[in-house]
Amino acid sequence: MDIKQKNSSINDSVGIVETKYYIYPDKIKLESGIEFGPVTIAYETYGQLNKEANNAILLLHALSGDAHVAGYNSPEDKKPGWWDSMVGPNKAFDTNKYFIVCSNILGGCKGTTGPSSVNPETGKPYALGFPVITIEDMVKVQKLLIDHLGVNSLLSVAGGSMGGMQAMEWVIHYPEFVKSAIVIASTSKLSAQGIAFNAVGRTAIISDLNWNNGNYYESEPPANGLSIARMIGHITYLSEESMHKKFGRKLQDKTSPDYNFNVDFQVESYLQHQGQSFVDRFDANSYLYITKAMDYFDLPSKYGSLALAFRQIKSKFLVVSFSSDWLFPPDQSKDVVKALMNVDKDVAYCAIESNCGHDAFLIEKDHQTRIINSFLKDIFKG
Amino acid sequence: MDIKQKNSSINDSVGIVETKYYIYPDKIKLESGIEFGPVTIAYETYGQLNKEANNAILLLHALSGDAHVAGYNSPEDKKPGWWDSMVGPNKAFDTNKYFIVCSNILGGCKGTTGPSSVNPETGKPYALGFPVITIEDMVKVQKLLIDHLGVNSLLSVAGGSMGGMQAMEWVIHYPEFVKSAIVIASTSKLSAQGIAFNAVGRTAIISDLNWNNGNYYESEPPANGLSIARMIGHITYLSEESMHKKFGRKLQDKTSPDYNFNVDFQVESYLQHQGQSFVDRFDANSYLYITKAMDYFDLPSKYGSLALAFRQIKSKFLVVSFSSDWLFPPDQSKDVVKALMNVDKDVAYCAIESNCGHDAFLIEKDHQTRIINSFLKDIFKG
Repeated sequence: MDIKQKNSSINDSVGIVETKYYIYPDKIKLESGIEFGPVTIAYETYGQLNKEANNAILLLHALSGDAHVAGYNSPEDKKPGWWDSMVGPNKAFDTNKYFIVCSNILGGCKGTTGPSSVNPETGKPYALGFPVITIEDMVKVQKLLIDHLGVNSLLSVAGGSMGGMQAMEWVIHYPEFVKSAIVIASTSKLSAQGIAFNAVGRTAIISDLNWNNGNYYESEPPANGLSIARMIGHITYLSEESMHKKFGRKLQDKTSPDYNFNVDFQVESYLQHQGQSFVDRFDANSYLYITKAMDYFDLPSKYGSLALAFRQIKSKFLVVSFSSDWLFPPDQSKDVVKALMNVDKDVAYCAIESNCGHDAFLIEKDHQTRIINSFLKDIFKG
Repeated sequence: MDIKQKNSSINDSVGIVETKYYIYPDKIKLESGIEFGPVTIAYETYGQLNKEANNAILLLHALSGDAHVAGYNSPEDKKPGWWDSMVGPNKAFDTNKYFIVCSNILGGCKGTTGPSSVNPETGKPYALGFPVITIEDMVKVQKLLIDHLGVNSLLSVAGGSMGGMQAMEWVIHYPEFVKSAIVIASTSKLSAQGIAFNAVGRTAIISDLNWNNGNYYESEPPANGLSIARMIGHITYLSEESMHKKFGRKLQDKTSPDYNFNVDFQVESYLQHQGQSFVDRFDANSYLYITKAMDYFDLPSKYGSLALAFRQIKSKFLVVSFSSDWLFPPDQSKDVVKALMNVDKDVAYCAIESNCGHDAFLIEKDHQTRIINSFLKDIFKG
């Protein structure tokens, strides 16, 4: 990367940020009934908590995200955080105004306790000794962090995809604590098709001989399995149209097909690259735990109905969907909106036209910036 | 299965049929330029060729099909052929009227020469010594069989999915020979998304250590890889709606989740079963070769444009699509229809409303029967 360009993008961002760690020393009770702890929580913060302590926003990441939502951890970083386009000075989540917090989820592999973390009782990684967790458990752990930071109310909880699931559990569990929720490209329950894609990804990992029943931390990881899981995921994150626009049937570095089983098409090369590079930055067991938590997510079943789930909440909602998102399609966002309206809650819904598929929440900066800016301004005033 | 019910379904079908084999002793020139042969072709026939020899219909199977399109190969068979609902006395392809032929494709593993066949020059299975083939190559081999059977013109060539691709190559290559084509749930070129799903399936097979660069015929086959490829395939064959109706979020043999990595949901159990049972009946190398042939299928690019591809054809067309088919969506059928109309060809198009996804061509019996019956009657008269 060109140094000048790099510095300019650092200047354009929140700059250099440090990942911090909070260790909650006790045990928490998980939704499964298991008591688990201690828990280390990796987090980053951006902007300043104001005197009134009423400008804090918690950002919630999706399957493969982490605490590093914006800026650079070091000047050598090639890329900024995963939602840098949305978090920073004068951006959708404006760090000049708001105190932004983002933490790695429970079960993750980016600093928060997960299956790859060392179990203090054995001195070895938990592996499958780590308990199966839920979205609610992730939220409980986030609340411990927020309390530790001295934040006594949240202006908003916001996230896309699985981040939106967490946002909904937040306002249900802590109705007095959270002023608003921004739920983007998400759903109130994972569909059969969503479970199916997750199940195939998990099967790929578990079938990899290197997985070894989860005990691979001192040997080769199940790279092939995790890579396949990620390739499947990537197909679901793009729309058919965006794949067509991005790759079409273009061949990779050749003018005619090879008539063998090497990579022929650009789309194959892209997926293989995505799969292989994911292996360097993600833990296969975390992939199992997190997708399972998504599979289990089902607010209507857990609370009797979606309306019942939302009956006690006090937060204002902004729900955003993208027309070409076929993983969490607009209809699933509309179900959330309808349920909120049925129990007379304050909800704004924005159905954005986009051909970027599910990934639109990471890509469609301009439209999201306008509506989130305006939504937050209203809440912050009120 | 109940014996009485079984006999009644045999009576309702074409009954007991025998798979036959034709050995073409010479070499054929493949699209890649390679000369390949001899070729054994497995086929079945139903009904009788009439005196005028003008009632023959060639049925063309999809990725995992075979020559056994209808009836039972033995009274012990648990299931009839793959399109039994459509082929038989008084069915869509009426065996009282028409002489029906169906053969296993080149590269397959159900009797026609493919990678699992023994190479007569080495006495060992071809494995990856088998040449990479195309849809056109499959069609060339089918023509050898049709000539061998003494059929000198085809009333129709018909197939769903990859079968539709073959139908299109048939009428392009043998315009004088084929009176009509029935192209169901198909496309004139595989989309980037279609290539992507195939590529992930192939990666799963190739990553399986048992695959051993294709040489597994004297050892354990790459069962895990093939099973994963099939699971991915099955997701694409169903629609989100049909998955929802069929499985929803129903748990498999339990009332609450297990909080472990066993199968929790019915949809997981279904996919695992589909994957595992596929391994017993299909060859992993065939899966590689056939999906590659689909990837390469691109009539517009091969002939300059779709209109140019169809310019010389003399066959009437029936094109059928299904509303919830997201693998080969209706728009891709419409592209075929438009191109045919642009070059003034005779085409009927039927867009069937169905929530069965791509698999609808195997399921939607009634609607397809009506339109195919009527289409064929017209052609047979004319």
